[in-house]
Amino acid sequence: MLILYNYWSSVCSQKVRFCLSEKELTFENRHVNLFDFEHWRPDYVKLNPKGVVPALDHDGHIVIESNVIIEYLEDVFPEIKLRPKDAASAAKMRLWIFNSEEIAHPYVNLASYNPRHATRLKKKRYSVEELTAIAATCPNPIIAARFVNRQLNGVSVAEEEAAYGALDYLLGEMELALSPGPWLSGQDYSLADIAMAPYVSRIEVLRRPELVSAARRPRVAEWWQRISERSAFKEAFSLANPDKTDPIQR
Amino acid sequence: MLILYNYWSSVCSQKVRFCLSEKELTFENRHVNLFDFEHWRPDYVKLNPKGVVPALDHDGHIVIESNVIIEYLEDVFPEIKLRPKDAASAAKMRLWIFNSEEIAHPYVNLASYNPRHATRLKKKRYSVEELTAIAATCPNPIIAARFVNRQLNGVSVAEEEAAYGALDYLLGEMELALSPGPWLSGQDYSLADIAMAPYVSRIEVLRRPELVSAARRPRVAEWWQRISERSAFKEAFSLANPDKTDPIQR
Repeated sequence: MLILYNYWSSVCSQKVRFCLSEKELTFENRHVNLFDFEHWRPDYVKLNPKGVVPALDHDGHIVIESNVIIEYLEDVFPEIKLRPKDAASAAKMRLWIFNSEEIAHPYVNLASYNPRHATRLKKKRYSVEELTAIAATCPNPIIAARFVNRQLNGVSVAEEEAAYGALDYLLGEMELALSPGPWLSGQDYSLADIAMAPYVSRIEVLRRPELVSAARRPRVAEWWQRISERSAFKEAFSLANPDKTDPIQR
Repeated sequence: MLILYNYWSSVCSQKVRFCLSEKELTFENRHVNLFDFEHWRPDYVKLNPKGVVPALDHDGHIVIESNVIIEYLEDVFPEIKLRPKDAASAAKMRLWIFNSEEIAHPYVNLASYNPRHATRLKKKRYSVEELTAIAATCPNPIIAARFVNRQLNGVSVAEEEAAYGALDYLLGEMELALSPGPWLSGQDYSLADIAMAPYVSRIEVLRRPELVSAARRPRVAEWWQRISERSAFKEAFSLANPDKTDPIQR
């Protein structure tokens, strides 16, 4: 039995849900509300000591970190193959899984940060002292410090510029990697495409969707069109916010 | 034929050399002098468009990113096994490969930064304008911005504190992961141990070696003792600086 602890709009959660859908695996969906800080509560931290989503429970065995989870799913459920057999293509796949984490993840997060977060938190009437106290419940000092910093200082224009610069660079590399394509690891659709999809999906709704436009990056745009038409993509990305509040992306 | 483009004291280079040694693979060692910015020259950037070391050339096929390279070596040269067969242990292995990159790498780099870098660069008599011009040769805007920032602003006390806080957290998790051990992925010595070794080696020579002391972290210290006695470790980590200059770690 598979249980996925995740947040509806988190990119890492989308990545794992997308992989599960491609593999036609059914799972119990447990929503962890990041805006209620459920990911830092003792029950969840027992599953994931890093205090982030998602976490996969497979027959009682816990796997954390989205990139680790998707290779685990490939190891355990290889019937629908998402990892190329030849080593060179597998290395290309892992390079793009790595790039999704090293570059796409932090800079999409930076670029996603906007006043809506602050508004949502203010609606809940947290004072600075309360936010600091909430951060103190986080088991991971890196995540806690980032949370407090973002809440207190927001994102500067320079940071936002650097974030878009980094994403522009990554998408330029992606355009090259998709030649000849058709997929990031070459001939075979793989975990690399699944790993990058949530970030391209997010970039589309940020302030510079032209980064992935057909005019600017024809191969990325065409790849994205093919991804977004997949039924597994539609299934994984259509999860509604069970909170019924405004969609706050994170 | 294997050719490794790398820098003698770079942690990611050490990681790959350690893996090659464990697998008893011979390779041609090509030194890329980071302090002469050879990693940003067009010839090297053709091999590694990210402008970082190492890069592996295997019969003309190029693989970049140390974590990708070590899984590639496992796929291509499986005779000496460094990846557990069972999926749960392989996931533990990948979690620690991931942790080495997500947490150990940036914070060891931050904590490693010290006035010796600036001194070395000053000896070469680079002005701020020249450093900025050098950064402009870097193909990767993330690396270029970090380089300029470190040269101009150094590392603040707060950044250094945060770096040691993050490493303290990671080593705490490592202490837990080594129970029962004996290795990071469990019973089998694996790529996880190889991935973490260069960072523990570096922490030992930084300002807070107590983070990995036997008194504070008995399991980590005992693991480290076992690692450092391996002949492959000695071979991989004993590479001398071919520059014959002061050992500047990076």
